[in-house]
Amino acid sequence: MNPFIAMNRFHVRRGSEADFEAVWQSRDSHLRDVPGFVSFQLLRGPEHNDFTLYASHTRWASRADFEAWTRSEAFRQAHRGAGGNRDLYLDAPHFEGFEVTQELTA
Amino acid sequence: MNPFIAMNRFHVRRGSEADFEAVWQSRDSHLRDVPGFVSFQLLRGPEHNDFTLYASHTRWASRADFEAWTRSEAFRQAHRGAGGNRDLYLDAPHFEGFEVTQELTA
Repeated sequence: MNPFIAMNRFHVRRGSEADFEAVWQSRDSHLRDVPGFVSFQLLRGPEHNDFTLYASHTRWASRADFEAWTRSEAFRQAHRGAGGNRDLYLDAPHFEGFEVTQELTA
Repeated sequence: MNPFIAMNRFHVRRGSEADFEAVWQSRDSHLRDVPGFVSFQLLRGPEHNDFTLYASHTRWASRADFEAWTRSEAFRQAHRGAGGNRDLYLDAPHFEGFEVTQELTA
């Protein structure tokens, strides 16, 4: 069973970066209590003309753990009110799931 | 100083996935010897009609550590011969650099 990384990519309007980060900072995701959760990172990427690319990475012990979470009450709670922040983005977040196939640590 | 993730995205031709993974498996990157190196992952993402998306993630203690590596002899050695694998891809790899702005671990 490969570890799994759930990634969402966000096109955040220029000028809304601080508001976007504050939304994540204040979010109470309860991820630590979810079986198979390994780690979460919010990543700030390159700036473009009309947006700054952000990505959220959530690492799970397996794809099955991630899928179980998306069907859980904890998932619904974590995403409650997410629609209220729609004006921070140019378009809808883009989801991509990845399996870790090779790994090296220092 | 935020941790830094250097990501490359690869559009690997359908049918070339095993060859692509073998190239990475056999690569002797010496990353473990490089100052500021934290971890590396090769990620297999969604399948599309004519390619499978892969991403390489390399985590560094800081963007400056990553940039120092790109100017080093170790970097040149690790990428030697990379052009010989061009037929595995639909197009050139796409680089994106990210700073870790928030983080949570289990």
